[in-house]
Amino acid sequence: MSYLSRKKGQSYLFEQVYDLLVQRIERREWKAHEKLPSIRQLALELQVHRLTVFKAFQQLKQQNKVYVKDKAGYYVQAGIAQEEYSDEPLVNAYPKQNLLSALQSAAVDYHLTQALIDPSLLPNQYFSDYVKKVFDLYPKVLSTYAPVEGDSELRDSLARYFTRTCRTYVSPEQLLITTGAQQAIHLIALSFLKPRDVVMLERPSYSAAIDTFRAQGAHIVTTDITESGYDMDALELTMKACRPRLFYMNPTFHNPTGAVVPADQRKRLVELAEQYRCLIIEDDTYPDIYFENKPVPPVYTFDTAESVVYIRSFSKYVSPGLRIAAVICPPVLMNVLVTAKSLADNGSPLLNQKIFLHYFESDRLQQHFDKLRIALQIRKEVMEEELSRTDWKWVSPGGGLNLWVQLPAEQDVNRLLASALERSVSFVPGSYFDSENRTSTHIRLSYSYLNETRLREGIRRLVEAGRIYN
Amino acid sequence: MSYLSRKKGQSYLFEQVYDLLVQRIERREWKAHEKLPSIRQLALELQVHRLTVFKAFQQLKQQNKVYVKDKAGYYVQAGIAQEEYSDEPLVNAYPKQNLLSALQSAAVDYHLTQALIDPSLLPNQYFSDYVKKVFDLYPKVLSTYAPVEGDSELRDSLARYFTRTCRTYVSPEQLLITTGAQQAIHLIALSFLKPRDVVMLERPSYSAAIDTFRAQGAHIVTTDITESGYDMDALELTMKACRPRLFYMNPTFHNPTGAVVPADQRKRLVELAEQYRCLIIEDDTYPDIYFENKPVPPVYTFDTAESVVYIRSFSKYVSPGLRIAAVICPPVLMNVLVTAKSLADNGSPLLNQKIFLHYFESDRLQQHFDKLRIALQIRKEVMEEELSRTDWKWVSPGGGLNLWVQLPAEQDVNRLLASALERSVSFVPGSYFDSENRTSTHIRLSYSYLNETRLREGIRRLVEAGRIYN
Repeated sequence: MSYLSRKKGQSYLFEQVYDLLVQRIERREWKAHEKLPSIRQLALELQVHRLTVFKAFQQLKQQNKVYVKDKAGYYVQAGIAQEEYSDEPLVNAYPKQNLLSALQSAAVDYHLTQALIDPSLLPNQYFSDYVKKVFDLYPKVLSTYAPVEGDSELRDSLARYFTRTCRTYVSPEQLLITTGAQQAIHLIALSFLKPRDVVMLERPSYSAAIDTFRAQGAHIVTTDITESGYDMDALELTMKACRPRLFYMNPTFHNPTGAVVPADQRKRLVELAEQYRCLIIEDDTYPDIYFENKPVPPVYTFDTAESVVYIRSFSKYVSPGLRIAAVICPPVLMNVLVTAKSLADNGSPLLNQKIFLHYFESDRLQQHFDKLRIALQIRKEVMEEELSRTDWKWVSPGGGLNLWVQLPAEQDVNRLLASALERSVSFVPGSYFDSENRTSTHIRLSYSYLNETRLREGIRRLVEAGRIYN
Repeated sequence: MSYLSRKKGQSYLFEQVYDLLVQRIERREWKAHEKLPSIRQLALELQVHRLTVFKAFQQLKQQNKVYVKDKAGYYVQAGIAQEEYSDEPLVNAYPKQNLLSALQSAAVDYHLTQALIDPSLLPNQYFSDYVKKVFDLYPKVLSTYAPVEGDSELRDSLARYFTRTCRTYVSPEQLLITTGAQQAIHLIALSFLKPRDVVMLERPSYSAAIDTFRAQGAHIVTTDITESGYDMDALELTMKACRPRLFYMNPTFHNPTGAVVPADQRKRLVELAEQYRCLIIEDDTYPDIYFENKPVPPVYTFDTAESVVYIRSFSKYVSPGLRIAAVICPPVLMNVLVTAKSLADNGSPLLNQKIFLHYFESDRLQQHFDKLRIALQIRKEVMEEELSRTDWKWVSPGGGLNLWVQLPAEQDVNRLLASALERSVSFVPGSYFDSENRTSTHIRLSYSYLNETRLREGIRRLVEAGRIYN
């Protein structure tokens, strides 16, 4: 369930109200054969015109979601609408396969699916020389476990870094080290959700996050994200009506759209989170991969009410093989998160944390980022130059690893994918980022993995694939 | 709920039957105000004398768990017995703290809590020299992710190893690499359990496993393990009555008791697992840490019906900091387990897998084990020598890292712990290994972490602590 793009006047509200009512039925807030609140009550609660509620009721009736009894009111229809929410325990909610990883492991020459840094842009040689030093410093690094929360030197170092860069004091006790950002999302889902809790996601959203929350039995609602950020009124209405337990968001160089949520929305968001007791999960993956201007500060720096859990990928741009991410968590929630980590793997490997620590503390990191930003900007421009010969549309992102490209309406994305794969090119269809797998005319093209020559060739083949099958 | 030690004749059966009936009520197989089956029916089903069932019903009545209505039969009492199984979704089942890890991080000089190998017995220097070679072999090891299932070279190598050592063909496709055995247990709980499923554990059992299954919302039943293994009749009765979805076991140098389940029981167990459709989770932690004789082959080698998932710790005895374990999983279950791994952390770090692989393939591993076995046997004997001056009792284990010591009845374990901690000694109370935290006169003493001198001193202080407070 979600709010489509904002339309003019009444019809925007009508659509929202209708969606909200459907959600309440599907989530069994209103059970089968239960009487719905009166039109008057709902109009008051949602602060909309009674006629809007009336129209929504009419549509619910047409859709066989409610029935009218004795002129006394509207009642919830049993059956289809509620079937998916049976009282049965969740029968293995775990998805049987991960579409995106299947696509990413496809044997093609031109992977535009990989939102990963090209290994040749990473400081591999430096690390090879470097690791030996780590063993000299910590001869027993392989014979001991790290604390569950993470190595204390690394947590100290990260706390100083966050305090310095984010204008907010962060103590080492608020930090948890995880085996990559994916583990952070997973531990958060395990720690803070119970089955059938509502989780709000952006639409589109990171597909592995969708899968993770769904596997935990969450009911997913969405709020749109576009180049101008969120529609804050729609977002508030969803929070108010659906009371999400948490909102998983990726507000800086958003994956896949590249959008950056503006500062005023960030400020308002933490207020809403406090008001509606919704925990914000801010996944900050690309803050250092900007092209012209540094992005606005993270949402958690605006937080004054311990409403934000912040996830920061670290090793991704330096040494993805190390798998190091950090979570900044309000102290009151830390205990349960650390217990989840101890049951999940009893702490990330110490060696990896020590290797990362010493690189992180060196000057090399900033030098690497300066170089990486330029290299990625060039690749982005190469991709855009090739695409400029088509009628495909995109908003040029200010950072990140992806273009979010809108195809002309007559293109069928699945047929384009089949045709591209025949030409040894892969990309990610937009539907992969939709929690309901709705078809989309968007595709995600990553410019970070292939060098300029291969990128050019990949895009040429892709464009050709689109032309030929049309 | 569990079966205490076997008593003579009727009373053994009575106790079991009573326990089973209580379990069915607690698990809501029989709901509040539901009529129980007749005495005749139950006697037939459980193949016991009707008088035994009658006596159990009488006791249920005395305990206010059932009531009698209109002489028509026995009905389940609402209230206390069922309170813990409300229909409410599980409200954050995650435990707020992990008792064992709190104890293990206590600041004492003589840690008898640590079932870990003393770092000075590990090949640290060798690894320091070695890691450089790994970077020469794989210059981009830090810039790539491993496949979710694990590095393919490592899986190939392990498959060959298992096929060679365990008399059963294992293919690489059946193998999943995890970040330590704890992650394997956690992924299994996530993949194969739904809330309120029944999980069977040994009593006593590994405390982190108890916590993991409980956090997943499982209902736990137990079967006793002693030096002679299981009571197979009691075990079968529990399987029959409680229909556990899985049985998590540690049959070789069992933690904490040191018991080894004999081969005939292993054979029978896989038959029972098939018959009652119970998945066996075999946690094989210490197979290489034997003192005189190699232990019997793992349970999974007796399996003919894909009823066993096998977890093997690897890095624990070599380089615990690497965090490498492997799972052998029936092919039909592999898909869901790999998806769980992909959502949990998207694959274990590649560097760690490559470092382990090259050590694992070298001759060093066997040489290391030969040395380690002798060192640990000596430490075990030192501990036993010191304890022989007390009236404490234990069965000398044939392998593993722990003594499971029974204190005289007049010792209060909690007071002993307090008194020991004052003397800078720690140990693990037996109640930590009981899924219901029942008090126990047993304690676990690990002899693997301290050298002989410190071990002697630690035990002396412990014995003194017991003497003084008594």
